[in-house]
Amino acid sequence: MTKFNVLILGNASAAPSLTRNHTSQLVNINEQYFLIDCGEGTQIRLREHKIKLQRINHIFISHLHGDHYLGLIGLMQTMNLLGRVNELIIYCSENIKEIIDIHLKYSRGTLSYPINYVTVSSNQSELIFENEKVEVSTIPLKHKIPCTGFLFKEKPKSRRINPKAIQDYNIPKHAINKIKLGEDYESETYEIVKNELLTQDSLPSFSYAFCSDTAYEEKIIPIIKDVDLLYHESTFHEEHADRAKKTFHSTAAQAALIAKKSNAKRLIIGHFSNRYPDLNLLLNEAKSVFENTRIAEQGIFFDVQNSQ
Amino acid sequence: MTKFNVLILGNASAAPSLTRNHTSQLVNINEQYFLIDCGEGTQIRLREHKIKLQRINHIFISHLHGDHYLGLIGLMQTMNLLGRVNELIIYCSENIKEIIDIHLKYSRGTLSYPINYVTVSSNQSELIFENEKVEVSTIPLKHKIPCTGFLFKEKPKSRRINPKAIQDYNIPKHAINKIKLGEDYESETYEIVKNELLTQDSLPSFSYAFCSDTAYEEKIIPIIKDVDLLYHESTFHEEHADRAKKTFHSTAAQAALIAKKSNAKRLIIGHFSNRYPDLNLLLNEAKSVFENTRIAEQGIFFDVQNSQ
Repeated sequence: MTKFNVLILGNASAAPSLTRNHTSQLVNINEQYFLIDCGEGTQIRLREHKIKLQRINHIFISHLHGDHYLGLIGLMQTMNLLGRVNELIIYCSENIKEIIDIHLKYSRGTLSYPINYVTVSSNQSELIFENEKVEVSTIPLKHKIPCTGFLFKEKPKSRRINPKAIQDYNIPKHAINKIKLGEDYESETYEIVKNELLTQDSLPSFSYAFCSDTAYEEKIIPIIKDVDLLYHESTFHEEHADRAKKTFHSTAAQAALIAKKSNAKRLIIGHFSNRYPDLNLLLNEAKSVFENTRIAEQGIFFDVQNSQ
Repeated sequence: MTKFNVLILGNASAAPSLTRNHTSQLVNINEQYFLIDCGEGTQIRLREHKIKLQRINHIFISHLHGDHYLGLIGLMQTMNLLGRVNELIIYCSENIKEIIDIHLKYSRGTLSYPINYVTVSSNQSELIFENEKVEVSTIPLKHKIPCTGFLFKEKPKSRRINPKAIQDYNIPKHAINKIKLGEDYESETYEIVKNELLTQDSLPSFSYAFCSDTAYEEKIIPIIKDVDLLYHESTFHEEHADRAKKTFHSTAAQAALIAKKSNAKRLIIGHFSNRYPDLNLLLNEAKSVFENTRIAEQGIFFDVQNSQ
């Protein structure tokens, strides 16, 4: 069983409060860390959870509004101070480099590690990261400035060896790897044992979609179709739907409608305007459209593999 | 009695921790607020103390190392969100404008209020702010990049009316203002009453000097001579004096020596490297040179008028 969870480091929209940090999330897929967004104070929230900063090699920035990136330079500086050597890969619109460079210029700072800037486009969904087990694609969102969400998807897993069948058919050890890859077994006497007899179905692959900031945008539905866990911003209550439209944000009901239409298994809502001291107002609104909704509470881990 | 205090909002050097924010201080002189430095997270610390952000009209940035200014843009954005109208005056080296402008450019942001950038030089002490009661001058510091401290000085106060003498000499009300300004009283029959007979000595004027970041620098001594409260960085213990020299920072003993040589009444030390979990190590080092020293504890108000 692989690990696949999301730690909410902040759920505030524009103005942070004592209990609500600006947006940031840490995705942990089998102990590989991916940081999404990095609002002011993110490095402190990471310390609070005893996350080793140097284990973060990939940072995804959705867009260049301050509440989504103003903690990045501070985090990078602390990584530097701690003697980081490994490359840091930053996925963002191309302008992030200019912002970081001007800071380094005036602070006369150099970094002890290289940065690899991966420019993401907000026009179409594209694959921006891939390893053996996971791929990350962008989700073009509809916001005031270029903005992308991120879809984390486990690749299809290989079939699992059935230990009893391996024993029953007397399969030698050297043949196991090929069977794992789906091949039939052929013995020295040319007898064939079908792969299905030797293996069990593979474990399911899970997916997580991060969609913030965005107005209600049905174009994202085919991209996030059947996602296991969907984070969708819900800055406003329906009562402030006009304000949501004007500022290119979503209401809780709109977030829930996207979850419903995309057949998501579960929805978490966040990026709350601080005009709502009681978030149940937003939760109940979303639940009336899509029952399996939860608040993206700061400090909470969401297990992507658990649909409850 | 006027109010003159300093609220410590952060005392960490480069890497912040859960309990030590990056540098920021709020100087309150008779309910007029002056913010010095604005490290990441400062707006949260201000909220913690229920400080009304819109009452801050003057922000002094010592230098462009991230731990002294990376909270500024977030604070400015929250001020904007809260509908600020009043001008914000930022005192810093000229490059701060470029940093803020590039952020506004890529976030396509506009501010609801004007910014007045006052460029400070780090070559000589100069008067950068003055009103009826207070003046603020720069203190050229010795750091890796241009860096200035700030000296807050109450102007000499007027003599105080002696109510009993006013009664005894039958002074009419209309003459009081001139007497407050130091004039003698001349009656309608040309009798003169000397000002000294009608007034008491003025209350003392107090001063606060903020010196961070800096290597040991005796040139600042004449500028901060006889200061009531001196904040001097003490990033390191004497054990790491080499590191202090290399990074243009001070040890606790050096901070204390500056306090002693400038005849300060009281010293507070801060900007601590997080290699020292127990700050008493630094406090004791400073006290061995200058007894009246205290730790600049986060969340503490220091009364500039109280030398204990």
